[in-house]
Amino acid sequence: MSQANIEKSEIDIVIGALHSDLTAFMNEWKPVFSQFHLIVVKDPDLSAELLIPEGFNLDVYTKSDIDRVVGSATSILFSGYSCRYFGYLVSRKKYIISVDDDCVPARDNNGSLVDAVAQHITNLTTPATPFFFNTLYDPYCKGADFVRGYPFSLRSGVTCALSCGLWLNLADYDAPTQALKPEQRNSRYVDAVLTVPARSLMPVSGINIAFSRELLGPALIPALRLAGEGKLRWETVEDVWSGMCAKVICDHLGLGVKTGLPYVWRNERGNAIESLRKEWEGVKLMEEVVPFFQSVRLPESAITAEDCVVEMAKAVKEQLGQSDPMFARAAEVMVEWVKLWKKVGSS
Amino acid sequence: MSQANIEKSEIDIVIGALHSDLTAFMNEWKPVFSQFHLIVVKDPDLSAELLIPEGFNLDVYTKSDIDRVVGSATSILFSGYSCRYFGYLVSRKKYIISVDDDCVPARDNNGSLVDAVAQHITNLTTPATPFFFNTLYDPYCKGADFVRGYPFSLRSGVTCALSCGLWLNLADYDAPTQALKPEQRNSRYVDAVLTVPARSLMPVSGINIAFSRELLGPALIPALRLAGEGKLRWETVEDVWSGMCAKVICDHLGLGVKTGLPYVWRNERGNAIESLRKEWEGVKLMEEVVPFFQSVRLPESAITAEDCVVEMAKAVKEQLGQSDPMFARAAEVMVEWVKLWKKVGSS
Repeated sequence: MSQANIEKSEIDIVIGALHSDLTAFMNEWKPVFSQFHLIVVKDPDLSAELLIPEGFNLDVYTKSDIDRVVGSATSILFSGYSCRYFGYLVSRKKYIISVDDDCVPARDNNGSLVDAVAQHITNLTTPATPFFFNTLYDPYCKGADFVRGYPFSLRSGVTCALSCGLWLNLADYDAPTQALKPEQRNSRYVDAVLTVPARSLMPVSGINIAFSRELLGPALIPALRLAGEGKLRWETVEDVWSGMCAKVICDHLGLGVKTGLPYVWRNERGNAIESLRKEWEGVKLMEEVVPFFQSVRLPESAITAEDCVVEMAKAVKEQLGQSDPMFARAAEVMVEWVKLWKKVGSS
Repeated sequence: MSQANIEKSEIDIVIGALHSDLTAFMNEWKPVFSQFHLIVVKDPDLSAELLIPEGFNLDVYTKSDIDRVVGSATSILFSGYSCRYFGYLVSRKKYIISVDDDCVPARDNNGSLVDAVAQHITNLTTPATPFFFNTLYDPYCKGADFVRGYPFSLRSGVTCALSCGLWLNLADYDAPTQALKPEQRNSRYVDAVLTVPARSLMPVSGINIAFSRELLGPALIPALRLAGEGKLRWETVEDVWSGMCAKVICDHLGLGVKTGLPYVWRNERGNAIESLRKEWEGVKLMEEVVPFFQSVRLPESAITAEDCVVEMAKAVKEQLGQSDPMFARAAEVMVEWVKLWKKVGSS
């Protein structure tokens, strides 16, 4: 039921540094982060020196590390929010937790600080139940159970491979929504974790996630890059694309995806109205992307996340490649990513 | 966004009276129920006179009314929890709300009394979003919205036909769970409503529900009756069966099903250990029932709830009828129910 099941040495916390001064961020997270090994990946577009306070067990990776490991003859780009994926690549741990550098620990309904890492690990180490919905949410949560009518044969559940946390204060809306409702803040702390049912898709946000690197790592890829991608979440869809790949792959492999707790507190940043022009690009793409992922089926021969990504890349190229060069490029990156993942993993 | 959209005269509250003294129950609900028309259906097995306090606008139906309307040459049984279905049949309203007579209003996290009727009506009169999961739960809820990556083409949603509320204190567990964990009480108030995704099934509990009688009414049927069915919820599966029919029909007709708020406070009753022997019957049936409902598909020609029930009855008879006489009987009741629904509706 808790992170007691696993060793802290099996976890890497990966931080993509889009800001040079991480002092406040790291200090806010210190009670949690200081217990774990951290991988900090500096956005290669960031020139200023990183400021990181002492007291952490961490490795910092910069542009020169990326160039050394990945090489220059690559279509994979690690700039902006994509820099964190380099951390996923070089980690050797079983689990990865990743939180954006503009988020700090949230407080629950009782005013207590949320240990986001502990909650993510609980989510990943207790079963998921994708084949039948439990109306009392996560049946493995303390004080909860399966409700009347839930088939006993489905109660053992499946392994959870992806845990998607949420956000208080500034929610993860797109730029149009943010621009239309500039005052809107999320203050509703929903005290629940639930398994997203099999064959049901959702927009995974990269802001606050955790996953089994061992089982699902190769499926998280910075593949879809918008032409006008910027340094604000609402100017990106890389995590939404990656999340839909991951969900389809989890469904195929019989793995679970949970959403809900833990929350993080997301600080203000950027001007949604300025981003509006860029964001529509991503918004428009979703209209093609979602039906594709809803209908794509992977062959039975695909039995690992690597296999699945290669098959998914084929389908992306065939079915979406003609309609927008961004999709053709995404397919290319996916294939290259699997090669790179194997190479780095065996080195 | 609220019940302001609809007239109070469009709503019937249906109460199945399994206890003769409704005084405490009605008084607890008075601030809410006194604003609406009530249909009270007395369990035909109950001999004592009903005790109902004054101050309500209600119609009471008893065994003699059931015999008069339904006739005696019927396989439909209205005893026990099934009595409320007679109320669904004779109602002429657009919406029905039904709460068990051992439930009283719950309090939310701020200690305020929950208006369960208002919340159910909000659920039914705002769209449902079964085709893509919104990680911030009901996007139509005050202060919430669709998150980044949610396709704009799916944001208008579909009509919600069924709203399933939850329970604090005594949760709706089966007898084995209740017997194994006699001290377990549900104290987690999850402040959320969500659409159950299309093609995902859940065990609907009849304890606290609301539905569009107009769109879905004929699909709620007291069809599956256990041989040893008793007067305790955990001795029944009639609502679970009916709920699975309703969910499959909603998926087929493009209607939505929501779950979550409102909560009711469920009082103690019965001895789970004594019920254990009966309950295993229902528990075992679920192992056949769930795969059936997961795979059953309705023909395109079925365009109303009535059509769908008739088609579903055919499939039940064909695919389950041989394995247990209870299923064959359920199929028969479903066909008869549709005839009765049409007859009563046109009279």
